[in-house]
Amino acid sequence: MKMNILVTVDSNYLHPLTVMLKSLFMNNPNEQFSIYLVQSSIPDQQLELLDAFISGEGHEFHNIPIDDQLFSDAPTLMHYTKTMYYRLLAHKFLPQHLDRILYLDPDILVINRIRELYELDLEGYLFAAADHRTMPIKEINKIRFNPFDLEAYYNSGVLLMNLPLLRETIDEKEIFDFVEKYHSKLIMPDQDIMNALYSKKIKGIDEVKYNYDARYYNIYKLKSSGLFDMDYVMNHTVILHFCGKKKPWKKNYSGKFHSLYKHYEKITNDAVAALEGAKMGAASEKAN
Amino acid sequence: MKMNILVTVDSNYLHPLTVMLKSLFMNNPNEQFSIYLVQSSIPDQQLELLDAFISGEGHEFHNIPIDDQLFSDAPTLMHYTKTMYYRLLAHKFLPQHLDRILYLDPDILVINRIRELYELDLEGYLFAAADHRTMPIKEINKIRFNPFDLEAYYNSGVLLMNLPLLRETIDEKEIFDFVEKYHSKLIMPDQDIMNALYSKKIKGIDEVKYNYDARYYNIYKLKSSGLFDMDYVMNHTVILHFCGKKKPWKKNYSGKFHSLYKHYEKITNDAVAALEGAKMGAASEKAN
Repeated sequence: MKMNILVTVDSNYLHPLTVMLKSLFMNNPNEQFSIYLVQSSIPDQQLELLDAFISGEGHEFHNIPIDDQLFSDAPTLMHYTKTMYYRLLAHKFLPQHLDRILYLDPDILVINRIRELYELDLEGYLFAAADHRTMPIKEINKIRFNPFDLEAYYNSGVLLMNLPLLRETIDEKEIFDFVEKYHSKLIMPDQDIMNALYSKKIKGIDEVKYNYDARYYNIYKLKSSGLFDMDYVMNHTVILHFCGKKKPWKKNYSGKFHSLYKHYEKITNDAVAALEGAKMGAASEKAN
Repeated sequence: MKMNILVTVDSNYLHPLTVMLKSLFMNNPNEQFSIYLVQSSIPDQQLELLDAFISGEGHEFHNIPIDDQLFSDAPTLMHYTKTMYYRLLAHKFLPQHLDRILYLDPDILVINRIRELYELDLEGYLFAAADHRTMPIKEINKIRFNPFDLEAYYNSGVLLMNLPLLRETIDEKEIFDFVEKYHSKLIMPDQDIMNALYSKKIKGIDEVKYNYDARYYNIYKLKSSGLFDMDYVMNHTVILHFCGKKKPWKKNYSGKFHSLYKHYEKITNDAVAALEGAKMGAASEKAN
């Protein structure tokens, strides 16, 4: 059975998006993916290349262009654009026949099989997501959202979605009102909204397995008394998430998973360059 | 055209050998390899599994068992066994029709295309090998082998062999006499022999590209004024060599390429486990 993957990026994140997808495809052989991209600003030429890349890997690409007029009532926030709503309101734009989809951030490597997560029983929850409980940031976020009585603060970078229930439940007006009221407190807007409004309707999943924060190898290892060593991570972790401001596709990154990321990036660049070469070859043949 | 690869390991190194081969196969798609294993002590069952692994990946396996009686005149050295001669005398055991072969140590990851190295013009040299000139060990080895007037000290872990010339030139008696005479000075026996006796007949190749010492990321980067960063290595380095006593398949290893190695090790283990599972399935079917 095909697995549906949701991504919502702008042009700046197309490069890491292709790396994430390449790692997903390579480490899930014999699987078929339908990739849904919800976006409003990516030029056609770039969309064509992404389509060629995904199709060339044997998977399906669905572009879901958003008319930002749809969000004319939505408040904006500092330097964030209205794209921050795409993730939480994706069920409004996705085809009605889809009943589940796995949202993945672009700053991710998928290094093992993803089907077990995809098939998780959602038991009436809106989402499944990992609570980054290993890290001190959790306490900070709990205090920041004290009025909402959060039991956990979930990371929204890996989000399994219960689409029929989301269509019934999520009210865009509630979200817009929340942003109006709390805009001064929002640091990571869509993640904050998700936690404040829907925390109790999120099923927790294992962060080490499905949303491993790549910055914290030493902390995970220490807190597990050495159990979560590199062998453990490579054997059990499915999703490595390069959280934080320093990104492995930028200069001066360093970290435990740097070489692994860069190797996938190289393989991805080679695949994309081959497509571009083929396209230019075809274009020059046409011109002759 | 098929590429010939030479390996000489005992049972203790079969595991890293399979990881090395898997990385070679994965990063050289559309290539055909013939793997020649020169050995004397590996049990048949392990050889069958290695054969199944290599065949399953679409390549050829040739076992070249050595009768150690052939080395009855050869001196042994401390804890080294006579297997130390297999690499330098491999041309005696390999099929006569082969005209070149690339020897690879098992503590290697091949992360890019290897054909350019394989097709290097050997111009009358016996071997092509990398001089580890970035590292201070070179000076030590030059002093140690002062009587031989070495211009360079080559690493024997990656060795392209000119087989017709080796058959004409290399005299096993010269090697045995050398070992008798200098046994107290030999630290890495086959590498020392190669350098002392044949240094001037070795064509130097770029160590960063073809024999990158995985311990020294920071030194390579520093000495190149930042040029050899992780992007450069992933784009240009073909052979990552995990030199030294600490090996990435052992506990408590750490280093810049740890996650990359462990990821390949995991993929390799999965492939081997699938073969073992299939074999057990076949055996139990046969029993029924």
